Amino acid sequence: MRVVYGLNPVRELLRAAAGEVSELWLAEGGTRGVAFAELERLARSAGAKVRAAPRPKLDRLAATDRHQGVVAVVAEFRYAAVGDLLARAAESGRAPLVVVLDGVEDPHNLGAIIRSAHALGAHGVVIPKDRAVGVTPAAAKASAGAVERSLVARVTNVAQSIERLKEAGVWSVALAADGDRLISAVDLRGPTALVLGSEGEGLRSLVRKSCDFSARIPMTGEIDSLSVSASAAVALYEAARQRVG
Amino acid sequence: MRVVYGLNPVRELLRAAAGEVSELWLAEGGTRGVAFAELERLARSAGAKVRAAPRPKLDRLAATDRHQGVVAVVAEFRYAAVGDLLARAAESGRAPLVVVLDGVEDPHNLGAIIRSAHALGAHGVVIPKDRAVGVTPAAAKASAGAVERSLVARVTNVAQSIERLKEAGVWSVALAADGDRLISAVDLRGPTALVLGSEGEGLRSLVRKSCDFSARIPMTGEIDSLSVSASAAVALYEAARQRVG
Repeated sequence: MRVVYGLNPVRELLRAAAGEVSELWLAEGGTRGVAFAELERLARSAGAKVRAAPRPKLDRLAATDRHQGVVAVVAEFRYAAVGDLLARAAESGRAPLVVVLDGVEDPHNLGAIIRSAHALGAHGVVIPKDRAVGVTPAAAKASAGAVERSLVARVTNVAQSIERLKEAGVWSVALAADGDRLISAVDLRGPTALVLGSEGEGLRSLVRKSCDFSARIPMTGEIDSLSVSASAAVALYEAARQRVG
Repeated sequence: MRVVYGLNPVRELLRAAAGEVSELWLAEGGTRGVAFAELERLARSAGAKVRAAPRPKLDRLAATDRHQGVVAVVAEFRYAAVGDLLARAAESGRAPLVVVLDGVEDPHNLGAIIRSAHALGAHGVVIPKDRAVGVTPAAAKASAGAVERSLVARVTNVAQSIERLKEAGVWSVALAADGDRLISAVDLRGPTALVLGSEGEGLRSLVRKSCDFSARIPMTGEIDSLSVSASAAVALYEAARQRVG
């Protein structure tokens, strides 16, 4: 957890990255009605909790009295390591099933994928540090609480993590509209990583080349694109279906 | 298309139902900087386009000059009838595949489901008029354009629509966490309606009783819930998988 305080710093934070703010604290009896109303609106629309408190409470939160009656709390998620995901798989007694996301940018998509991964029995999700959204409060909210029970590893290099999984016996399957086989024709019962690209760009070619297979979801619409969160749900379901059957 | 004009009516509309506004027009050279800034922020955060124009343009849009420099355009989607969905299925040469949503409330979920339905070959989506979101601009945005190519029927009574589909030879499958069979054990190759409930409440019992089967998606997580949009993507995929295979 870290705090940001002061009217302008908090306003800038809310304008630039409201999704990272988990709580907005405002001093009771403040005289800055209009400015506070804007902060409150920005915070609420991003899913942050808004609370009023006496100034001494804000002094303690900010560890200073120079907060102008405004303190934002930024939640920090505790990331796991790829090894933790493998350990959880070993504990479960089931073959590892992980989701690797190469650059998902929308916190709602990340949260939705973490939720689906949890519901459909995956052992965790791997995301990159750069050019991708992290587990922000907005993503946590979109996951409907699943982040609290899920392992998410944030890695510097996605292709290297796929190699690391390969060394541990995990086969990686790149999901792509032009994948070589139908996803239902790939055996997902063994240790499996499902690898998906970003909303706009899809998988980067280096990441795709690191994978053992490429697979596609059968589509018939004129717009042949599922969203990345729908694609993840479908691929996770296909693995669950094969494993149940 | 309908228009709402005037500072207060448009502000109330944006506060209560910003997702229904597709365009916000503001008079150029207006003097109401602060008020306009709030409208603009509300409109943008809901995905509406914001445009500045000379007052005569706004006079024409509003069909009056009493708009105070503020005109909102509310887009209206052209709904289809259940019969149109069946006709489209007949044209496609494939067995009908439709999605029936019993009360989805979030426009992002509705848009995501319309997108998945289109990508995975469904002939349309049925939604209720009451206690459910319609095809608002926010839903259209979330569908990534799929609403423009999709048939959505809005009906007074979901259970009656299921009966109507049954008369046309369409079997209905209720998706529920406690469904009788695994979805993969239900034959979805014939004329099929996939019936899903609302985010919070699931399927109402009258609607569920109208269905021919109930089916579940295999789940293993501690939180045994997929979102309604993930469930729809999975069920649509299962139908597509069976039909390809």
